[in-house]
Amino acid sequence: MKSKKINYQKESLKLHKALVGKLEITLKTKIKNKHDLSTVYSPGVAGPCLAIEKDEKKYAQLVSAGITIAVISDGSAVLGLGNLGAKPSMPVMEGKSVLFKRFADINSIPIVLDTQDTEEIIQTIKNIAPSFGGINLEDISAPRCFEIEERLKKELDIPVFHDDQHGTAIVVLAGLINALKITDKKPKKIKVVINGVGAAGVAITKLLRLYGIKNILLVDSKGLICNERNDLTETKKNLIKDNTQGNICGSLLTALENADVFIGVSQPDLLGKNEIMAMAENPIVFALANPNPEIKPELAKKLGVKILATGRSDYDNQINNVLVFPGIFKGALEGKKSKITDTMKLNAAKALAAMVKNPTTKKIIPGPFEKGVMETIANAVKRTKN
Amino acid sequence: MKSKKINYQKESLKLHKALVGKLEITLKTKIKNKHDLSTVYSPGVAGPCLAIEKDEKKYAQLVSAGITIAVISDGSAVLGLGNLGAKPSMPVMEGKSVLFKRFADINSIPIVLDTQDTEEIIQTIKNIAPSFGGINLEDISAPRCFEIEERLKKELDIPVFHDDQHGTAIVVLAGLINALKITDKKPKKIKVVINGVGAAGVAITKLLRLYGIKNILLVDSKGLICNERNDLTETKKNLIKDNTQGNICGSLLTALENADVFIGVSQPDLLGKNEIMAMAENPIVFALANPNPEIKPELAKKLGVKILATGRSDYDNQINNVLVFPGIFKGALEGKKSKITDTMKLNAAKALAAMVKNPTTKKIIPGPFEKGVMETIANAVKRTKN
Repeated sequence: MKSKKINYQKESLKLHKALVGKLEITLKTKIKNKHDLSTVYSPGVAGPCLAIEKDEKKYAQLVSAGITIAVISDGSAVLGLGNLGAKPSMPVMEGKSVLFKRFADINSIPIVLDTQDTEEIIQTIKNIAPSFGGINLEDISAPRCFEIEERLKKELDIPVFHDDQHGTAIVVLAGLINALKITDKKPKKIKVVINGVGAAGVAITKLLRLYGIKNILLVDSKGLICNERNDLTETKKNLIKDNTQGNICGSLLTALENADVFIGVSQPDLLGKNEIMAMAENPIVFALANPNPEIKPELAKKLGVKILATGRSDYDNQINNVLVFPGIFKGALEGKKSKITDTMKLNAAKALAAMVKNPTTKKIIPGPFEKGVMETIANAVKRTKN
Repeated sequence: MKSKKINYQKESLKLHKALVGKLEITLKTKIKNKHDLSTVYSPGVAGPCLAIEKDEKKYAQLVSAGITIAVISDGSAVLGLGNLGAKPSMPVMEGKSVLFKRFADINSIPIVLDTQDTEEIIQTIKNIAPSFGGINLEDISAPRCFEIEERLKKELDIPVFHDDQHGTAIVVLAGLINALKITDKKPKKIKVVINGVGAAGVAITKLLRLYGIKNILLVDSKGLICNERNDLTETKKNLIKDNTQGNICGSLLTALENADVFIGVSQPDLLGKNEIMAMAENPIVFALANPNPEIKPELAKKLGVKILATGRSDYDNQINNVLVFPGIFKGALEGKKSKITDTMKLNAAKALAAMVKNPTTKKIIPGPFEKGVMETIANAVKRTKN
């Protein structure tokens, strides 16, 4: 029997109204008298000011800012809602800050930007960067998100991480590692189709390749990404530059022929009987469109799909970024990393997969409330040198 | 007997080290299970997102950001320490956030900027402004602070307040109102000398004029601000444009001849016997240089100064911005004011002065821990229409 459907939007609105947002600033120290005032503020505060001026490394030891993450968005790709702009995206950013605190005890500050100009976003973030120990980019649309992250990684000396790209990619790879284990398929021999070549799709492609998966076909709303097409962005062109996959053109259905794995980060209900039937035996389907996946779980089951993952909490195998980003930043802060490298992402995915001792079709990935998830990811980041 | 001198800088450094900064993010809501996760974050969070997109006025009702103040500095004029730059100024900004919370229960976020370029500061603050319900500018050097504040006030629809200017000016006027009461001097008849024509000096001049004090002489490190000088900034020129005071040139000593009030926001130990003797009977001396005032309190007393105010907590009559800024923003947020106007500042000063029912030479201003200070200021702002 299906349980009564909960209207989460309505519940959430009620909660936000009652609380007036979700975050609060609290003080680590009390101010009871003039002595406290003179210690916490002027004239005493000159002490830590001068100590940081003398040695910038003291920053993360003397101020909260040095270990605080900025959660930054321009509101251009908010959840599945699209380009809502700055203010309407704030509930998501505050939500992200809630998750940082809840799952890794990390302080973070939500910032939404009143510009969607790439250069201005980069300059603004660089200008406020000394206020933070790391930057979590969020809900910034492709392809601008790629340049923004790349430039900030180059030009700042603190970790910069676009969660919609890499958080998703890490959880997907972790789930896939276990799915392959169950079906006894080998990374170097499988054929993967990724549908949706935005922020998440591009990052998943790169991380899967890094893991050793060679045969990946990419499909966007116009069909397969291939050399014949003249409507490709630089990012898309680069993805097929150094491999032979770019020679294959056609539809999603063409792409799926004999594919072992489908990874959708795209639109609801794109997969039907024909698509699933075209795939190889024991197909692995990651239908991650939110909140409505590329195939209804009930239909997938009916069509014989045994390993299905979605972005939803009400089905098995939820691919959820919250498994990853809190631990990534925890590891980076504690390990004093100035960058989140590809090797760190790879190691994080492997460590997350390894948490499931005996993967089954119903469990290829840990749940968000399982103990040790954050620590596992943080340790993977900390122990990775570069 | 003098009590043992406390090394506040050393104590403060110890405190900052022990706590790793002074601020913490806490959550207004618990996340215990998947249901909570779906309400606080995706998919439920789409509810408040869409509500704000539909009606921007909902912002201050649904997210913490809408009632959170940004405390922003470029680190160019940190306390009395000068231009330390972004990171070394952070302990002060975090301290300010502590005071906002302690004295007005207002959430605020400290931000330090990696630029001291006027245009870039303005653009950066405008870009992050949707993340906040108000902007408190802090420790930005003159004359850049004037343009930055003016422009932001014009171009943003949330309150912008440079505390070093207006916070100081409001407390000074409040103290002066009571000092004049004690000495039975009339605002329209007194002669005031303001020494130091930076952020605070300029704002004090403007507010005192607004209160009805006409005869104000301004002195900077080169002497009296007068028409003959060709080294004046635009700000300084404007201050003498529409009055006759610009015709008088000379030294601080010249200026002080028969002056009723000295207000110093400048350098330690500028006033000696000659200067005090030159002043009118019952001189009022506000020696506000921090931490070392323009005249040592002991010397002032010896020279017969009965009404002395300083910036220090260890003497009577402390002119302390903390009396003002928490209430200013509280009033602005609760009264839904988009600007802090001159009339609000004037009313705040009058209300603060009126809190001292029977002013004496030892008490012209309330202390920071007295009950009702914040509420008095907040109410003055709230009830002022424009």
